[in-house]
Amino acid sequence: MTLTLRPVRPEDRDAFWHMFKPILRAGTTYALPRDMQPARAWAYWSEAPLETWVAEDQGSVLGSYYLKANALGGGAHVGNCGYIVADHAQGRGIASALCAHSLERARAQGFKALQFNCVVSTNTRAIALWERFGFQTVGRLPGAFSHPEMGEVDALVMYQRL
Amino acid sequence: MTLTLRPVRPEDRDAFWHMFKPILRAGTTYALPRDMQPARAWAYWSEAPLETWVAEDQGSVLGSYYLKANALGGGAHVGNCGYIVADHAQGRGIASALCAHSLERARAQGFKALQFNCVVSTNTRAIALWERFGFQTVGRLPGAFSHPEMGEVDALVMYQRL
Repeated sequence: MTLTLRPVRPEDRDAFWHMFKPILRAGTTYALPRDMQPARAWAYWSEAPLETWVAEDQGSVLGSYYLKANALGGGAHVGNCGYIVADHAQGRGIASALCAHSLERARAQGFKALQFNCVVSTNTRAIALWERFGFQTVGRLPGAFSHPEMGEVDALVMYQRL
Repeated sequence: MTLTLRPVRPEDRDAFWHMFKPILRAGTTYALPRDMQPARAWAYWSEAPLETWVAEDQGSVLGSYYLKANALGGGAHVGNCGYIVADHAQGRGIASALCAHSLERARAQGFKALQFNCVVSTNTRAIALWERFGFQTVGRLPGAFSHPEMGEVDALVMYQRL
């Protein structure tokens, strides 16, 4: 596998939806509507953010992340990212490659910190990965995420100064 | 003073702007653009939220708050509020009246918790008030708010189950 990261392009839309749809429909990791439709999801992922990147192996898009400001005004120097990896490409280090790249890009954009606002506490694999990349849990919100199978579970706020 | 709380109306727009403009321009408490213009501020405060209320004394609007969902999907059962009090009406218990009312309304709307995402740590009067109303600091974001006079100060995440 030779993973290449490049900026998202309009023609990535179907590959993106193929990755993101099962994540949305499962409703276990993102605080987004489970029935979110493709056009809205694409706008959320690739238009609203400052930058969106895809990870590609031999022409196949296997993952993606976005980078945006986490807040406006006095909070605009803190960035926020979201990451996805295609189901069939799990366990190949793609999430790590995306996370490492996103830290570089956040620094390049001048962000002073990165923040994840609603990390579902049951998403332990992602949490472990982010911890390896320097994120710390700086907050715990009791019952703040309604998990389709597990009911109300805690959400974490994760943060890292850059 | 006989404070009455009622839902916001279109004709409150000027009174709202008179209260909110100095708060925005100061840039010390809300993570919003300091140069935010009236139409956008009005939409943010009175159109995007689920409910917006004003506190009125003898026909004068002296404060306001909004209530909305803090997130989508699995986070939609957590509410979020913003509060403002007119400069000249500080110290009369208006913020307390707004906060008490907002907790009632959040419960009535079925929210299971209320969350404030970016409480500027130097806003000690507001923090003390929210603590009196049952909010706890569940997270601290180092340097996450850029204060116009004090530089990067911590932001707090405050939370209360309902």
